[in-house]
Amino acid sequence: MLADDVPGSSRETASPDVGPCYQNAFDEIDADPNQFLCVVEDGQQIVGTLQLTFIPGLARNGARRGQIEAVRIASDRRGSKLGEAMFTWAIDECRSRGCSLVQLTTDKARPDAHRFYDRLGFEPTHIGYKLKV
Amino acid sequence: MLADDVPGSSRETASPDVGPCYQNAFDEIDADPNQFLCVVEDGQQIVGTLQLTFIPGLARNGARRGQIEAVRIASDRRGSKLGEAMFTWAIDECRSRGCSLVQLTTDKARPDAHRFYDRLGFEPTHIGYKLKV
Repeated sequence: MLADDVPGSSRETASPDVGPCYQNAFDEIDADPNQFLCVVEDGQQIVGTLQLTFIPGLARNGARRGQIEAVRIASDRRGSKLGEAMFTWAIDECRSRGCSLVQLTTDKARPDAHRFYDRLGFEPTHIGYKLKV
Repeated sequence: MLADDVPGSSRETASPDVGPCYQNAFDEIDADPNQFLCVVEDGQQIVGTLQLTFIPGLARNGARRGQIEAVRIASDRRGSKLGEAMFTWAIDECRSRGCSLVQLTTDKARPDAHRFYDRLGFEPTHIGYKLKV
């Protein structure tokens, strides 16, 4: 699912076997109490994923942030309201973990995603900068 | 320092005493091995801060990300290259912790910051969405 979109197709290793790079990353996510990898299954098919990171911080009177990364919806489930259901769950989960802010960045090359986040009430107040190191 | 800029002035509690909201948040940051709060001192004065969060993830072949939040430079030290020195350190620290990507978001209302990140080689490829909950 990571490889099945425009930015992902050139930067992921799509193979029937899960490579060790993915297994090691999964183990690290699984061991960290401030990470939550959400996977939505429908029978045997994985139809959606997202990852939550809970970030404590001093700003905004010591606000904890919930950050959403790695949002993916299976191509045959887009437009089915699955994304809305996942985000309703994710925002509730952030609130229940004491977050007062939920944040994410989305590639400028994903206009469908922008409309989706606008509809959910997210405000595009920031610029997301990335640096490969 | 959190209250001493345009977005911060309306949303922080500036007082000689550190309120319990800030102390609790500090304790939470301090206890999390994937958080690093960097404070730059010059004698008795705190002149700069930033916070690093190390985020494991599956995308990009299991890339770990270093996220930079809470960047603040004391108003009398802006333009002194202190920010460049802090970012050189922060990017090296992310690299040494196995990150292949460094990311941050910056408020669209901070044009000076945009020029600063552009100069450092960061690419403004993403939109940063926020939702208060």
